[in-house]
Amino acid sequence: MKNLISIEQCTAGDILKILHRAAHFEAQPNRNYLDGLVAATLFFEPSTRTRLSFETAVVRLGGRVIGFSDARTSSSTKGETLKDTIKIVSNYADVIIMRHYLEGAAKYAAEVTERPIVNAGDGAHQHPSQTLLDLYSVKKTQGKLEDLTFVVVGDLRFGRTVHSLIEGMSHFRPHFIFVAPESLALPEEYRRYCIDKGISFEETTDFTPNVVARADILYMTRVQQERFTDPEEYEAVKDVYVLNLDLLRDAKPTMKILHPLPRVNEIAQEVDTHPAAYYFSQAQNGLYVRQAILCEVLGIDRED
Amino acid sequence: MKNLISIEQCTAGDILKILHRAAHFEAQPNRNYLDGLVAATLFFEPSTRTRLSFETAVVRLGGRVIGFSDARTSSSTKGETLKDTIKIVSNYADVIIMRHYLEGAAKYAAEVTERPIVNAGDGAHQHPSQTLLDLYSVKKTQGKLEDLTFVVVGDLRFGRTVHSLIEGMSHFRPHFIFVAPESLALPEEYRRYCIDKGISFEETTDFTPNVVARADILYMTRVQQERFTDPEEYEAVKDVYVLNLDLLRDAKPTMKILHPLPRVNEIAQEVDTHPAAYYFSQAQNGLYVRQAILCEVLGIDRED
Amino acid sequence: MKNLISIEQCTAGDILKILHRAAHFEAQPNRNYLDGLVAATLFFEPSTRTRLSFETAVVRLGGRVIGFSDARTSSSTKGETLKDTIKIVSNYADVIIMRHYLEGAAKYAAEVTERPIVNAGDGAHQHPSQTLLDLYSVKKTQGKLEDLTFVVVGDLRFGRTVHSLIEGMSHFRPHFIFVAPESLALPEEYRRYCIDKGISFEETTDFTPNVVARADILYMTRVQQERFTDPEEYEAVKDVYVLNLDLLRDAKPTMKILHPLPRVNEIAQEVDTHPAAYYFSQAQNGLYVRQAILCEVLGIDRED
Repeated sequence: MKNLISIEQCTAGDILKILHRAAHFEAQPNRNYLDGLVAATLFFEPSTRTRLSFETAVVRLGGRVIGFSDARTSSSTKGETLKDTIKIVSNYADVIIMRHYLEGAAKYAAEVTERPIVNAGDGAHQHPSQTLLDLYSVKKTQGKLEDLTFVVVGDLRFGRTVHSLIEGMSHFRPHFIFVAPESLALPEEYRRYCIDKGISFEETTDFTPNVVARADILYMTRVQQERFTDPEEYEAVKDVYVLNLDLLRDAKPTMKILHPLPRVNEIAQEVDTHPAAYYFSQAQNGLYVRQAILCEVLGIDRED
Repeated sequence: MKNLISIEQCTAGDILKILHRAAHFEAQPNRNYLDGLVAATLFFEPSTRTRLSFETAVVRLGGRVIGFSDARTSSSTKGETLKDTIKIVSNYADVIIMRHYLEGAAKYAAEVTERPIVNAGDGAHQHPSQTLLDLYSVKKTQGKLEDLTFVVVGDLRFGRTVHSLIEGMSHFRPHFIFVAPESLALPEEYRRYCIDKGISFEETTDFTPNVVARADILYMTRVQQERFTDPEEYEAVKDVYVLNLDLLRDAKPTMKILHPLPRVNEIAQEVDTHPAAYYFSQAQNGLYVRQAILCEVLGIDRED
Repeated sequence: MKNLISIEQCTAGDILKILHRAAHFEAQPNRNYLDGLVAATLFFEPSTRTRLSFETAVVRLGGRVIGFSDARTSSSTKGETLKDTIKIVSNYADVIIMRHYLEGAAKYAAEVTERPIVNAGDGAHQHPSQTLLDLYSVKKTQGKLEDLTFVVVGDLRFGRTVHSLIEGMSHFRPHFIFVAPESLALPEEYRRYCIDKGISFEETTDFTPNVVARADILYMTRVQQERFTDPEEYEAVKDVYVLNLDLLRDAKPTMKILHPLPRVNEIAQEVDTHPAAYYFSQAQNGLYVRQAILCEVLGIDRED
């Protein structure tokens, strides 16, 4: 892979290669593979966690970082086009990690530069490094990717990470149980995608211990107030999709809870010490997966 | 020390150890002790000088820095709790240097992570690295910490650095002369603290050459307009607590002027070239003291 | 040179030395000359491209960077003077790269510190590293600096880079053709400068293929709406000073187009693939020139 733009571009082989490499970095994250290389982190839209995760990946590999964390301090405020910004930064950096508020921005960037582009999120569209760290977390905790049941809860309509999870898992025979309020149900487009790919799924509005009991992976997402046009509907559902200890009472002992973070209140604090709570470790896995991604797009295959 | 949260936590031995180590770094600040380590600087509230001082300390020790300088570009704007931010950053960094607008934030952070926490200021509460650099500056210029007279001027009511100076010096038999307008006098709590610890002190509203003449250390602080509820009172006192050359006419030849900075107008520019002016060197000492603090919390005792 | 404050301070010898060194870095930008050194980038006014270019120059030379990209997150918001900020940062860094919104700020900074100062732009005044990279681009593409014809187009009244180009080229017998709307014509002060230095020049409001045909270098600048007091005048000229392929039809085959960037719409996108388009390579040259500048002010003459 020369660029990582979307999870759709990744074959099963690509995914497994990245996951294999990530394990190499989990064993030892400090490796000098990027010595002499400069990575640019261009965050046209702020995202502290993602930026810090990528920057840690770079510096633990011995590389250097330049960049900006906020478009207000960038030349785009002077009316510069994305094309020009990318072409200029390509003169400085060996790889560009970018987050942009517009869908398709990363793909467009890859068309105007020879430098590798890593998409760290483009609008509501794609955030492939998130999906790869989700898959790494699945494989690490379940010992495999195949034939697992995912209970996916919350905002399935706008939730970018959920859509990408479906695409990323499509190679591995998942079974999905989608749990969402009606107005945040999975879009027809992704229901169709599952059918086309032969992915089995169920849909429900009920978030109950019985549903949780069936999960190998319980994937929680935020239900954001601003997604509702009807405030009363938000009030009616806001406390329904909140994970607490009671909902976990019949969970499989091997089940793990994932969350793309930030978490607001959709997972009660009491869950943090439950053995199934895996979301902070999942974030840590992001470091290793991002190290693997950087090496992949830069064509670095060292094993030392 | 696993964390540096407050100056109160430091014994005389802790303080002397840090000061001894700081002298080691003053002799040579570039030492590769943090090779392979990553420090996170999390500034939920901006403070350029403190941040740059800590970041210089890290990079001159061969470490790498990740972080943010402004909470507006951080995930806390999405409603993430401090706990979650600290837990996630703990996955990336080996030590966390944090400044927060809320009192107690650093202490709370230390409770949710195994990583060392260095408090770079939490609200009006504590800023222990400032106090340690103050003490380093005292010891370096006076040759000792014991039995010195401190004339402390300005806002003694809200001035966090003054309160911490009292606590930090409490081990070393200081004599304090507190000089402040009535509405910014030392709070009863700290007057009580001095009495309990057997620290001798005097209080006055008069900032005169006679008072300055008694100082080994003249510790200036800002009188900020926003601290006054009565604008007329501010107008009455604002020019009274301004240090100029005339006030220094009878100063001891060994006396030094300290200021936590930033200075606005409470020290006249004409004082900058006076031999007693030490506040810029004091800021430089901050670099060495912060190098010592980082090594202390990381358990690094190398002498090479 | 101890500081780089303005292009006026540079002799022909200074300029040629920097350009010679820049070629050394173009051959190999990764050289460890700044090992153990810290550069501060103090951007009191944001300028992403210039900051990233300087920061890349530092890190590709093995140095470390501290700094801020926006004065809102700096202590100057607390009323600290520029003098104090510079004196304090001098305690941390070995060289200071600064951009400020006030004319003369860099010169003043150089007066209050022993550390080398590199001016990365002060108000409408000077931006000498831009001029040096312009000259490097001229010499690289034309094989010489002497006896060349420059067609300079756009805002010649407020355009800082144009004024500095005239000063920088004054040593090398240029011929200038100034193309601008009347209200943005070259100020009398620079017309006088050309006459005093014996620089030949012409002035016109017509941007035509005939004028372009005479250029060795076509130097484009932005015509910014906010520079016009009369909106109708802006409407009348805004599309006149836009370079397109038709204007290039009679250009010399060796002619190159420069632009200080950011470009908004004064060069049509269709020009980007024309062989004369050199503005992105010009930005890349900025990296090598800035590496040469940093070594020059730090007194580093290594050739390895």
